[in-house]
Amino acid sequence: MHKGRLEAFSDGVLAIIITIMVLELRAPHGAEVLALAPLLPVFLSYVLSFLYIGIYWNNHHHMFQATERVGGAVLWANLHLLFWLSLFPFVTDWMGENHFAPVPTALYGVILFMAAVAYWILQTVIIAQHGGGSLLAKAIGRDLKGKASPILYALAIASAFVSVAVAQALYVLVALIWLVPDKRIERALAQHPRVHE
Amino acid sequence: MHKGRLEAFSDGVLAIIITIMVLELRAPHGAEVLALAPLLPVFLSYVLSFLYIGIYWNNHHHMFQATERVGGAVLWANLHLLFWLSLFPFVTDWMGENHFAPVPTALYGVILFMAAVAYWILQTVIIAQHGGGSLLAKAIGRDLKGKASPILYALAIASAFVSVAVAQALYVLVALIWLVPDKRIERALAQHPRVHE
Amino acid sequence: MHKGRLEAFSDGVLAIIITIMVLELRAPHGAEVLALAPLLPVFLSYVLSFLYIGIYWNNHHHMFQATERVGGAVLWANLHLLFWLSLFPFVTDWMGENHFAPVPTALYGVILFMAAVAYWILQTVIIAQHGGGSLLAKAIGRDLKGKASPILYALAIASAFVSVAVAQALYVLVALIWLVPDKRIERALAQHPRVHE
Amino acid sequence: MHKGRLEAFSDGVLAIIITIMVLELRAPHGAEVLALAPLLPVFLSYVLSFLYIGIYWNNHHHMFQATERVGGAVLWANLHLLFWLSLFPFVTDWMGENHFAPVPTALYGVILFMAAVAYWILQTVIIAQHGGGSLLAKAIGRDLKGKASPILYALAIASAFVSVAVAQALYVLVALIWLVPDKRIERALAQHPRVHE
Repeated sequence: MHKGRLEAFSDGVLAIIITIMVLELRAPHGAEVLALAPLLPVFLSYVLSFLYIGIYWNNHHHMFQATERVGGAVLWANLHLLFWLSLFPFVTDWMGENHFAPVPTALYGVILFMAAVAYWILQTVIIAQHGGGSLLAKAIGRDLKGKASPILYALAIASAFVSVAVAQALYVLVALIWLVPDKRIERALAQHPRVHE
Repeated sequence: MHKGRLEAFSDGVLAIIITIMVLELRAPHGAEVLALAPLLPVFLSYVLSFLYIGIYWNNHHHMFQATERVGGAVLWANLHLLFWLSLFPFVTDWMGENHFAPVPTALYGVILFMAAVAYWILQTVIIAQHGGGSLLAKAIGRDLKGKASPILYALAIASAFVSVAVAQALYVLVALIWLVPDKRIERALAQHPRVHE
Repeated sequence: MHKGRLEAFSDGVLAIIITIMVLELRAPHGAEVLALAPLLPVFLSYVLSFLYIGIYWNNHHHMFQATERVGGAVLWANLHLLFWLSLFPFVTDWMGENHFAPVPTALYGVILFMAAVAYWILQTVIIAQHGGGSLLAKAIGRDLKGKASPILYALAIASAFVSVAVAQALYVLVALIWLVPDKRIERALAQHPRVHE
Repeated sequence: MHKGRLEAFSDGVLAIIITIMVLELRAPHGAEVLALAPLLPVFLSYVLSFLYIGIYWNNHHHMFQATERVGGAVLWANLHLLFWLSLFPFVTDWMGENHFAPVPTALYGVILFMAAVAYWILQTVIIAQHGGGSLLAKAIGRDLKGKASPILYALAIASAFVSVAVAQALYVLVALIWLVPDKRIERALAQHPRVHE
């Protein structure tokens, strides 16, 4: 099966998620600088979610560049990932509107955790279809980042009830870890120039 | 005519429908876990609709992989299908906001029924253009799932006025029937590797 | 220049316009059949606009299939068309919410008129780039439909202040004229199989 | 890496931004012509932003036509540009709702300024990957427009607190400067017909 349409549909959903979140940033009634002050937490949570959706798009892009075949299981694993990502606008808004209160902060982490698990399932399904010696399997390697992220999210969820600052710091930390571009796949692709596009 | 743009437009519409539904999941004012409780029916009806749009995307994807020519009639039959799917956000919201009350539950089934009819029309138009011996005609075969779905939706609509639980169970049942990937087209495609992309 | 990205961007904008209009169809508070009654005019104006955006997508699709080169002027003429089409959700909502009152009905016609003019400009710019003997120029021919539409819209705008029923009938009439697929381009393409894709 | 998916994702985000802004143009309650009067500033600020997003799409399109390779840095520089553009609906709405008051007018300029800087960064990253003798580097040349724009935006931000009319005139002026299609890249491409698509 051809991977082009799966990529196009995912791109569409991710583009809408990343853009729709800005609708929660409602224009205030006043026209002074101070009228913007209550929007600051909503804006900050928008920036964090924009970063995360950007990271997912980037990694999704890399993963499917190293993918050759797309079967039915991959289609559903991909939709499962998009489902959890589609809840980003909701948790982003709830967390921002409540100035990073403990429960919304923890729920934000739950969605991050579920999205990470869904990404891992998708990656596992693709590798299972291609075999352990495949380009993607080699590129992923030991997948330290992929394994560390859910652990750090779980830690953040727990710490949200003690200190939301620690939880938020952990969310930012994981984002920064992923911001460093995934050289693994780029390197593997460079060594195998004959990639299907 | 080239099918690429019809697929791209359909992907766009489906991506927006699936994502826009989450806008009905409005962030509650409270910041406690209990503040989320009233959202549960809206969330559940979102999950059901996400599943259905995902199924339609998957089947649409498979159907057009087995399609070679796209004429004017196919363009309009496709737009007709997209019209009924575009009403999903409305009925999803109405059903969720009213905690699965009988009338909204029945209307949800009416939209499912009309979308199923529209999908059948689209499939029939494509087969008519390709001939009975075509790849898609062979792949569809007796089309048991396609024939059973509208009957089960009609049954659900009627039962909504007696027991909404039965109606909802039927909606979930049909979704599960379709979740099993459509091996027919994959199998037919595997036997005819020379597919136009 | 390559036309693929212009088509993809236009598809995206049209897909969003056609889908976003359904957001105006807000779920009513009651759960009975009668609660839907006030939505009927909004629904009918949604159906009309869905039809029109579908027609524009169809014609846009056909026109660019017969187009070979895309220069800077075409990019801007296309954006100009998308601008008028982007006002559809606004006029659709205003007309529906006010039960087809004269002024909103007339404004709906003004947007239809401007979109028709923008489409004609785009077509003229493309033909100017390709020359009078080009595939598109031949396919368009005398362009009776394209010339009759703005006249009928102007007639509808004027009649909206006398009888909104006449104005609406004219809007539906023009839509039906266009629903008949544009055989001209399909025929011209069939005669020139060597089309750039 | 392949540039197709970066273009598709950017097209999706830009298509949504340009279309979502129209949602702020809410249908008024009255059905007379005068009911539209309060919408005029919102409409005008919509037109200005539509023009700017159109310009960005056009220039983005041209820039990537002259681009051959897309690495990790380009992906992130592109997301950074999309982030600032995603704030257009917010500032457009705030400026329109407040009838072009000084602070919203200045903030609109700040977003324009940041988007221009982000565009310049993206351009610089692409040129760095391709080398100073590359097609894009030659096409950009001295980049007078790109250098003048941020200066004019900064001037507009400052003048917003003295006269909003001057600030708005500057925003329109820069838009008009860019409306003139970027002949440089078209010319450079015409001289190097062997462009990767």
